[in-house]
Amino acid sequence: MARFKFTISATEGAARTGTLATTRGEIRTPAFMPVGTAGTVKALYTDQVKQAGADIILGNTYHLMLRPGAERVKRLGGLHAFSKWSGPMLTDSGGFQVWSLSQLRKMDADGVTFRSHIDGSEHRLTPARSIEIQADLLGADISMQLDECTDYPCTHEEAERSMKLSLDWGARSLEAFGEREHQTLFGIVQGSNYPDLREASAKAVAQQGFGGIALGGLAVGEGHDQMCRTIDMTMPHVPEDYPRYVMGVGKPIDLVEAVARGVDMFDCVLPTRAGRHGQAWTWDGPINLKNAKFAEDLSPLDEAVPCPASQDYSKAYLHHLIRSGEYLGSMVLSWHNTAFFQALMQRMRDAIAAGEFKELRTELAARWEATKSKPKSEAS
Amino acid sequence: MARFKFTISATEGAARTGTLATTRGEIRTPAFMPVGTAGTVKALYTDQVKQAGADIILGNTYHLMLRPGAERVKRLGGLHAFSKWSGPMLTDSGGFQVWSLSQLRKMDADGVTFRSHIDGSEHRLTPARSIEIQADLLGADISMQLDECTDYPCTHEEAERSMKLSLDWGARSLEAFGEREHQTLFGIVQGSNYPDLREASAKAVAQQGFGGIALGGLAVGEGHDQMCRTIDMTMPHVPEDYPRYVMGVGKPIDLVEAVARGVDMFDCVLPTRAGRHGQAWTWDGPINLKNAKFAEDLSPLDEAVPCPASQDYSKAYLHHLIRSGEYLGSMVLSWHNTAFFQALMQRMRDAIAAGEFKELRTELAARWEATKSKPKSEAS
Repeated sequence: MARFKFTISATEGAARTGTLATTRGEIRTPAFMPVGTAGTVKALYTDQVKQAGADIILGNTYHLMLRPGAERVKRLGGLHAFSKWSGPMLTDSGGFQVWSLSQLRKMDADGVTFRSHIDGSEHRLTPARSIEIQADLLGADISMQLDECTDYPCTHEEAERSMKLSLDWGARSLEAFGEREHQTLFGIVQGSNYPDLREASAKAVAQQGFGGIALGGLAVGEGHDQMCRTIDMTMPHVPEDYPRYVMGVGKPIDLVEAVARGVDMFDCVLPTRAGRHGQAWTWDGPINLKNAKFAEDLSPLDEAVPCPASQDYSKAYLHHLIRSGEYLGSMVLSWHNTAFFQALMQRMRDAIAAGEFKELRTELAARWEATKSKPKSEAS
Repeated sequence: MARFKFTISATEGAARTGTLATTRGEIRTPAFMPVGTAGTVKALYTDQVKQAGADIILGNTYHLMLRPGAERVKRLGGLHAFSKWSGPMLTDSGGFQVWSLSQLRKMDADGVTFRSHIDGSEHRLTPARSIEIQADLLGADISMQLDECTDYPCTHEEAERSMKLSLDWGARSLEAFGEREHQTLFGIVQGSNYPDLREASAKAVAQQGFGGIALGGLAVGEGHDQMCRTIDMTMPHVPEDYPRYVMGVGKPIDLVEAVARGVDMFDCVLPTRAGRHGQAWTWDGPINLKNAKFAEDLSPLDEAVPCPASQDYSKAYLHHLIRSGEYLGSMVLSWHNTAFFQALMQRMRDAIAAGEFKELRTELAARWEATKSKPKSEAS
């Protein structure tokens, strides 16, 4: 199977920067992938996503297979043409959304049968069907193996059973994927918070011959510190020459700490979801534009972010737009957040290249300490 | 009071084309003003509004006085700076929305007291307060006199009483407006569907010394044919050297027929409201992208409209976006419709200049016959 050329151009401690060269273009790493859930990064034009600095976006198999339907996307020219994104695209396997969104799901050894959250219709995903949807129908540059997402927290016994199932599905995914010149497939490490399971999973996935290795089962309520611990217990067992992808992560402080641990790729809906809810992430931390204190604040969101959304709109105007439920408020904040996350990745890439990542990490950790997620069991 | 220089460069029958020269820039007439209700043309960036061809946009006094508040807009630099629109801006008086949106309104000879539809708070508009909000606080280039919007249909007696009240309020508005070098004020003709009242109103308004004359009380359910009849009965009494503005109109066929009758300016929420509901206006008439027949239609909305929204997105993709409730669907359709309406105005301006408006009118009337609004009494 094709493994896209992954070049590490500089390292500092475990952190590294480089490029992953896909047929559709280079991805600068560490990379943050904006999420184009249903064929659109919510409230952004693709030009804005590109100009914000994103090299690659993510599409959701679960959403697209239900609507408009994967076969339909294929007939319409594939997901790139359909959604007007000509750069690299990664699709998830659908497994996470089956677990988090669908109704009446029923797992078996071969796959999962579930009902659509949209209309209740019945669907089935197997490792092979997920590959067919991602690689053949949507046309993803990078596909993800189907895995099982276990509940958090879960027992060692349950985590082990689930991890082994995902390993088996990884093998089936590779078989279904076969030889492809211009597309690749990533495997997924599972094992919940258990060091022995993460180690076993990482070692096994690394031997299966994927084009990249992802850490799954994070950003599911474990909190920032546990996320870091899980990355710490896994990374020693993921070979350095694989691009490493932590799925569904995260807040800016999560990205910094994961990059410090050698992670190369991320995706998260946070920039656009937060934007729709009035939240803007800045170098000084997150602010909520709904707050009355911004009603007459003429300063822009963050002049240090090289984006019109960040520089050209007053907080007072955005406060008004968000309070009034105006589209433009969600549009500008989603755009700004997308650009901010890309600016953060660029700053980390530059710092690693310059040997200054340690200083940057210390500075940002101090600034953003208060934003670290608590475990959901401790959240009120 | 300042009357902006109005130059008619060509006429064909009653139709005319020219420019209205405001301090903030020229308005090419006939002109369609996109409506920026609450300080934003819904779902569009101001750059897109400008690039679509709009020379002037409209702001709503009622919405802005309630939220964020007119005094606040003033403190924030006025409506132009607040909403990032540097071109000419016209504001309405607030009267129409008090009539259509507010609760518990109470008219008296001096003004109207009403409760906000947002939070129930009590507010009052008088002719002088409306001018203060529009010209002093929001900073409109063109303000509108406060008028009373009568129900439709209404008796001759009620229409006459109301029309006379509006005349009185026009005089009070002029007095409050006073002398201004860079701003002007338009009067409003009322009189429902009654020829004698429209004539009396038009003649009186024409003598009051406004900078332009609007026809009010249209687009309130009278239907296309009655709208044309009312314009017909009014226009002979509106001097030719005034810019003539029909408020709240309308569909493309309404614009064509009103231009044929000598109207110079229009405003309507139709392009953006229709866009949010999945409707696209094209040279071939309106289509609704929700319709299943567009699910695999790869053609663009209308290649003859010079706008990325019109040319670069497939109907199939827009169908998916609208069905999925995605922001981008509303954004692209609102943008396209805004550009289509501007393209229509440009085509009419060009046709009048070339002496070919009659042919264009005949062509478009035939194409769009089916879109003519029926009177609301006949609508099911």
